[in-house]
Amino acid sequence: MSAYHPLTAEEAIQLAKSLPGRFPDQAELECREIGDGNLNLVFHVTAKHSDHSLIIKQAVPYAKVVGESWPLSLDRARIEREALEMEHSLCPALVPEVYGYSDEMAYTIMEDLSEYTIMRKGLIEGNSYPKFAEHIGEFLARTLFYTSDLGMNQQKKKELAGRFINPDLCKITEDLIFEDPYRDSPNNSYPDSIADEAEALRGDTELHFEVTLLRHKFLTQGQALLHGDLHTGSIFVRAESTKVIDPEFAFFGPMGFDIGAVIGNLLLNYAATPGWAADPKAQQLREQRLVQMSQDVWNHYERNFRQLWNADLLDEMSRTPGYQDHYVLQVLQDAAGYAGCKMIRRIVGLSHVIDIDTIADATAREAAQRKALAIGKNLVRHHRSIKSIDDVIELVKQASGNEVSI
Amino acid sequence: MSAYHPLTAEEAIQLAKSLPGRFPDQAELECREIGDGNLNLVFHVTAKHSDHSLIIKQAVPYAKVVGESWPLSLDRARIEREALEMEHSLCPALVPEVYGYSDEMAYTIMEDLSEYTIMRKGLIEGNSYPKFAEHIGEFLARTLFYTSDLGMNQQKKKELAGRFINPDLCKITEDLIFEDPYRDSPNNSYPDSIADEAEALRGDTELHFEVTLLRHKFLTQGQALLHGDLHTGSIFVRAESTKVIDPEFAFFGPMGFDIGAVIGNLLLNYAATPGWAADPKAQQLREQRLVQMSQDVWNHYERNFRQLWNADLLDEMSRTPGYQDHYVLQVLQDAAGYAGCKMIRRIVGLSHVIDIDTIADATAREAAQRKALAIGKNLVRHHRSIKSIDDVIELVKQASGNEVSI
Repeated sequence: MSAYHPLTAEEAIQLAKSLPGRFPDQAELECREIGDGNLNLVFHVTAKHSDHSLIIKQAVPYAKVVGESWPLSLDRARIEREALEMEHSLCPALVPEVYGYSDEMAYTIMEDLSEYTIMRKGLIEGNSYPKFAEHIGEFLARTLFYTSDLGMNQQKKKELAGRFINPDLCKITEDLIFEDPYRDSPNNSYPDSIADEAEALRGDTELHFEVTLLRHKFLTQGQALLHGDLHTGSIFVRAESTKVIDPEFAFFGPMGFDIGAVIGNLLLNYAATPGWAADPKAQQLREQRLVQMSQDVWNHYERNFRQLWNADLLDEMSRTPGYQDHYVLQVLQDAAGYAGCKMIRRIVGLSHVIDIDTIADATAREAAQRKALAIGKNLVRHHRSIKSIDDVIELVKQASGNEVSI
Repeated sequence: MSAYHPLTAEEAIQLAKSLPGRFPDQAELECREIGDGNLNLVFHVTAKHSDHSLIIKQAVPYAKVVGESWPLSLDRARIEREALEMEHSLCPALVPEVYGYSDEMAYTIMEDLSEYTIMRKGLIEGNSYPKFAEHIGEFLARTLFYTSDLGMNQQKKKELAGRFINPDLCKITEDLIFEDPYRDSPNNSYPDSIADEAEALRGDTELHFEVTLLRHKFLTQGQALLHGDLHTGSIFVRAESTKVIDPEFAFFGPMGFDIGAVIGNLLLNYAATPGWAADPKAQQLREQRLVQMSQDVWNHYERNFRQLWNADLLDEMSRTPGYQDHYVLQVLQDAAGYAGCKMIRRIVGLSHVIDIDTIADATAREAAQRKALAIGKNLVRHHRSIKSIDDVIELVKQASGNEVSI
């Protein structure tokens, strides 16, 4: 019989106390459960009169977002913890440190980041994060390169892939991103005002074709260890610092999926900007900044990735002239396609983003929804003919129906 | 401590006796070790004065073909046995039945096929196998379809993929097929008479590019459970029956790799034909038959695969118009590329084929080697622009430098 049970706040405090060296001996600990309650309990343990603190994150055996009827393997807590450890070893400054864990109880004790802001919230508030593209570009390049056959021994990579087989969490992605938005599914959710858009999505078989190619690649291409859910709600930011959290969807998949997640979520915020900006000038500045960030994320990724390839390539055949360019372009095309899929599903699928859903003005909200869909569809439709990041930006501008000078 | 040790003939007899119902109670059993000794011990256990018999195959912890210094995981015996069971469940008539096994001792007890001939030997003798293409086309279609995301629940497929992580055996393929022939490797082996060809292969960076694409797909694309080593030495034949054996290289990889293995080995025999045929007329007949078989293997595969897709498709998005055609063409292109890679490595790499190496006449042997290389290179070079099986045959003819009317 499993010893698993959901932790109480008192148990969380005891766990925190039992970790050597994390708190002063006589510290009086306090604990608050701060999770959003969808997939996990999150305990924030602090010491009175001190700045010592930590987080205990525990998986629960179901996904609340779709009711308790969607059971989820507790093994995802191990997967998340091992992914955190791998990412932290590759990018110590960009990933919280793991202090301890129990696979049986499905919890991980880790660095507290409560000084940080969830990036999605920061973007909605109109904050600028001038280091973000550089940081996330480095995170993407290092985690993807060093867990691929390019930068990791190929036998070791296969063993590692076996530890990141993640059927339950992958199924959420497969269903919610690559299937439901294109059919009449009870999981879908959208206001009547854009029912025409949702219906058009269901009938657009040319679009389905491109989505199916991206879906097939998601299902079959174990290119590198992905974060698997790298939206702006999985990233903590401060002005000069970036931390990537929550890799419970980690598995070996196509590199472009992680990159596309970042860019797609920046573009969702871009589509939402008229709903948040105080005036046309502020709107223009924010839009320019978001488009520039999307471009910079790719450029920093590409620069770092090519540097790692040139310095640390293990795979001899990949030195073949022209192959690096081919590989990088394929990843860009995939990233654009996945960015588009992620934008579409956040408008008509099960799980939305507050960037758009909390726009107060109904007209502005609907305009944002339609713009996000237009951009998403344009990226998916044309992803295979993209030749550079400029092409991606051009597809965004085309679909936005307005000029964004950058 | 592991109980593993290599079985003796006496132990093999005891194991055979312990299986209920396989031999008459008082049967007097005999045992001969009949393996080629490279990777496995193979015991043939028979009962005197009866036609009851069986095979016990046991893995040894090294690959002899490259000296005892190449250690190999014994877990491959489990992988082979589970692959046999999976293949047998999908194609009972085309795969030997498993009677028993021990993972710890790394043996499998299975149906005896000593009435059959190894297909490579039969082809060298000039035999015709009119049912072969139909049988192997069915084997390929059923095993590949039902273990892919098209025909298997996608969560179940991921769990299954975890059981077929096969780093040691995959590395043999990665090194010997996708790397050594294109560089100066101590593993390579070829006569001085074709040193010019081997040198040209090492300098042909356009060819390397195509090989690297095929290598990347082999390393990353978990499309279906492959046999992984489906050459004509892994197939037993009789006039009306075909049995696929030896799936110890099984793993989740690109479908085209198995199909290409069959076609590439038929074409190796085709390239060798002038060295074996009694006269020009016999030569022409054999060549025509082998080219027709290669074509028929694909056609039977395609017909079966499309039927299964139309009848048993589980993946809703894959119903998208045009996607089946796209998918099948991609598999054909891969198959042609992999067929080419396999032909090339059998001429200049570590492990050759007797179809060519045992041609008595040195001139005929060299001509066969050069023809095999020419066909292999032509297939690899042009695999991405192939549109139909006719294109594949055209590439074969082009490179053969003679007309094969079929």
